[in-house]
Amino acid sequence: MARKIVVIGGGAAGMTAASTAREQGEDDITLITEDEHVAYSPCAIPFVLEGKIKDFRSIVMHTPEFYQSERNIKVLVRTTVDKVDLDKRHLTTKDGQNLGFDILILATGGTVFVPPVDGRDLKGVFPVRWISDGQAIMDHLPKVQQAVVAGAGVVGLEMAVALHERGKQVTVVEMFDQVFPRVLDKDMADLVRSHCESLGIKFVMGTPLSRIEGKEDVTGVTVGNVHIPCQMVIMATGVRANLKLPEQMGLDIGPLGAVRVSPSLQPYRKGRLVPDVYLAGDVVMCQSAVTAGPTMSQLGSTAVRQGRVAGIRATGGKATFPGTASPFISVIGGLQVGGTGISRSLADYYGLKVKEALVEGSSRARYYPGGKTTTVKLLADADSGRLVGGQIIGGEDVTGRVNWITAALLEGVTVQEFVQRMENAYCPPTSMVVDTVNAAAEKLARLFRD
Amino acid sequence: MARKIVVIGGGAAGMTAASTAREQGEDDITLITEDEHVAYSPCAIPFVLEGKIKDFRSIVMHTPEFYQSERNIKVLVRTTVDKVDLDKRHLTTKDGQNLGFDILILATGGTVFVPPVDGRDLKGVFPVRWISDGQAIMDHLPKVQQAVVAGAGVVGLEMAVALHERGKQVTVVEMFDQVFPRVLDKDMADLVRSHCESLGIKFVMGTPLSRIEGKEDVTGVTVGNVHIPCQMVIMATGVRANLKLPEQMGLDIGPLGAVRVSPSLQPYRKGRLVPDVYLAGDVVMCQSAVTAGPTMSQLGSTAVRQGRVAGIRATGGKATFPGTASPFISVIGGLQVGGTGISRSLADYYGLKVKEALVEGSSRARYYPGGKTTTVKLLADADSGRLVGGQIIGGEDVTGRVNWITAALLEGVTVQEFVQRMENAYCPPTSMVVDTVNAAAEKLARLFRD
Repeated sequence: MARKIVVIGGGAAGMTAASTAREQGEDDITLITEDEHVAYSPCAIPFVLEGKIKDFRSIVMHTPEFYQSERNIKVLVRTTVDKVDLDKRHLTTKDGQNLGFDILILATGGTVFVPPVDGRDLKGVFPVRWISDGQAIMDHLPKVQQAVVAGAGVVGLEMAVALHERGKQVTVVEMFDQVFPRVLDKDMADLVRSHCESLGIKFVMGTPLSRIEGKEDVTGVTVGNVHIPCQMVIMATGVRANLKLPEQMGLDIGPLGAVRVSPSLQPYRKGRLVPDVYLAGDVVMCQSAVTAGPTMSQLGSTAVRQGRVAGIRATGGKATFPGTASPFISVIGGLQVGGTGISRSLADYYGLKVKEALVEGSSRARYYPGGKTTTVKLLADADSGRLVGGQIIGGEDVTGRVNWITAALLEGVTVQEFVQRMENAYCPPTSMVVDTVNAAAEKLARLFRD
Repeated sequence: MARKIVVIGGGAAGMTAASTAREQGEDDITLITEDEHVAYSPCAIPFVLEGKIKDFRSIVMHTPEFYQSERNIKVLVRTTVDKVDLDKRHLTTKDGQNLGFDILILATGGTVFVPPVDGRDLKGVFPVRWISDGQAIMDHLPKVQQAVVAGAGVVGLEMAVALHERGKQVTVVEMFDQVFPRVLDKDMADLVRSHCESLGIKFVMGTPLSRIEGKEDVTGVTVGNVHIPCQMVIMATGVRANLKLPEQMGLDIGPLGAVRVSPSLQPYRKGRLVPDVYLAGDVVMCQSAVTAGPTMSQLGSTAVRQGRVAGIRATGGKATFPGTASPFISVIGGLQVGGTGISRSLADYYGLKVKEALVEGSSRARYYPGGKTTTVKLLADADSGRLVGGQIIGGEDVTGRVNWITAALLEGVTVQEFVQRMENAYCPPTSMVVDTVNAAAEKLARLFRD
């Protein structure tokens, strides 16, 4: 009997789920998305604006027509789902279409959280989420001399560099006292901030955006007592899960403000698992791999992994999404910034006591020209020595090393075991004979000697 | 009671052992070496010849005087140990010195194996092991238009590129039918060979060097029926453990032609563990981490790891050297070539049936300019799915990914577990959303589905 599968959401999670279900042999798959594009990477938007990637068209991997003709997946763009009836298994769109389903995959993602400040609706205030946001920012650039970026996370700093590269005077405003709050520790974050400052980007830290000024167009912002004139404000103030449909469906929402799911990526209703519904992507609250608590990944790579599990599950296959270490990498004006597991502030949040070590090394042998400073920080559970986090900042080859530490975290390796067993490949042009990751592990292990 | 520690060998293993013992608080440490230099990386010699590193002086990290004055380690250079009396615990040098010891660390390394062909003693025939070899090659270069490199392993190809960069016509001669025999599979090796050929390097494969010609100076070589005129022959024909002292001491030699050791890095005599003697580096035959058999690492990074264990053991501390996956990385004319665990041919040698998958991806998102082709091959035990090997060829970021796969190998992760659990950090300028390593794991896991 043919199953009718409906996927809501055309981002990485939804598209992967639909394609995976198709690969498993399903042939009645419909995907519904509010956006006009599918299958692109929002992570690429700042790099288009920076001029590193030619145009927005390049970051769209496939058109809706491609999915229809090549993969036999029906794609409804610019279509909003208003209501899902889980019991009767059908949904209604805003424009009045009715669709039945046997299996529903919910991948509605997140939206940029814009704090409720005055002036948030003025012309020149932009979130960074859709290609249309990117295009709107691009179109507005000629009017801009000074820009303010609210939020010093990954998107905020990538955008700050992009606007700086476009010749704008950029000020980043952040309510925490460090950039990359939550995912980096302050000592590491300060390296990133110094790097941005050396490029000419300004910072106002420890104070939230109080007000955006202007009549029709933005003319400035107020941050505490400081007034900053500007013709553009980028809202990089974090992403919240889209809860409209999950709430309408009565799904249980977790403490982090996203939908609680089982390892099979099924949601709950009043504590009971809902059959034939699977979730993937930014709408999901899942299990942290390094602590007993829940987490939200909000990463493209996680969306793809969850999409695959949802797609396999939708077709009756076996797959689970285990805890996540949420490894990330970002490139801020040539500086690679990566991390995995939890930072000190997240450890505090989870109530976990940690020990830490930081080592500065190089990406090549000391005597090999062109080596880039590589700073590695590792964190371990103070009781057991189990590695729970890693942060790396460097000029090259950071991504693979983040994945390396991630593997150790996911396997529950202690720092003492890491020192004894984890080997590194060595060649003067690509590493030190004792890799900086190993050096950090050695330094951290010494704290556990007594 | 103060212990008298004597270390024989001034390479990475010996120097690390001596320094580690010093860090542990020992203050009567003597190190003996035949070479005039200590503490340099032989791996760097081809890159000095290539012109990437300024000169041979740069690759010497510390002088013998530094060790004496800064670390209180006595270093005897240009000194050969003739005989060790293990029962009386003293040794005799070639020039007649007698030294007693309480603890002996043997790190005598290996020497280049030069096949017994006619002409091997002619002027212009060089091994690549010591700085003096490198300097002799450098001095001979002005006389050279054509060079032959015997052996297409890591050192051979790095040397071929170096000589090519110096404007020489280079031919590589290899008795196996592929470059990087043993450590790469042929499909991967052929990518490296094609790259070298595109640079202008020639190859004669599947035939050993028959003869080196010339009266006093080299004038050519014969390989099977082929005559190649040349004024220089580089012997990159592999390294064998220096067994002179171990044999004189009566230590048990393993089947791979190196000294058999326990995980504490102690040798055996007639099957019985020898107290107070520790070995490290190329002289050691140790345990493979991925098969039940023995292996020889012959890597600088392994030498350092073993040196540290020997140094800790020498001072009564606890440490063991577990099985090794021998991860390696090499840079061949800008192409990064790395691997870990075992190749198909080594799997055959160990009698292990494997399944394999190869995926070609990119070092960046498809749409991000400058991405380099990245080819990943993974091998798993055909019965259990346990990962036993990985090979990566790419233009950037190979080292960290080799270490990542190594971590999975060392933890005994199956390819199915890898797919389910191993996350990758993603950012368009540094990776694809599904990293090529993960893509290879997915392809390999599909072979285990039935």
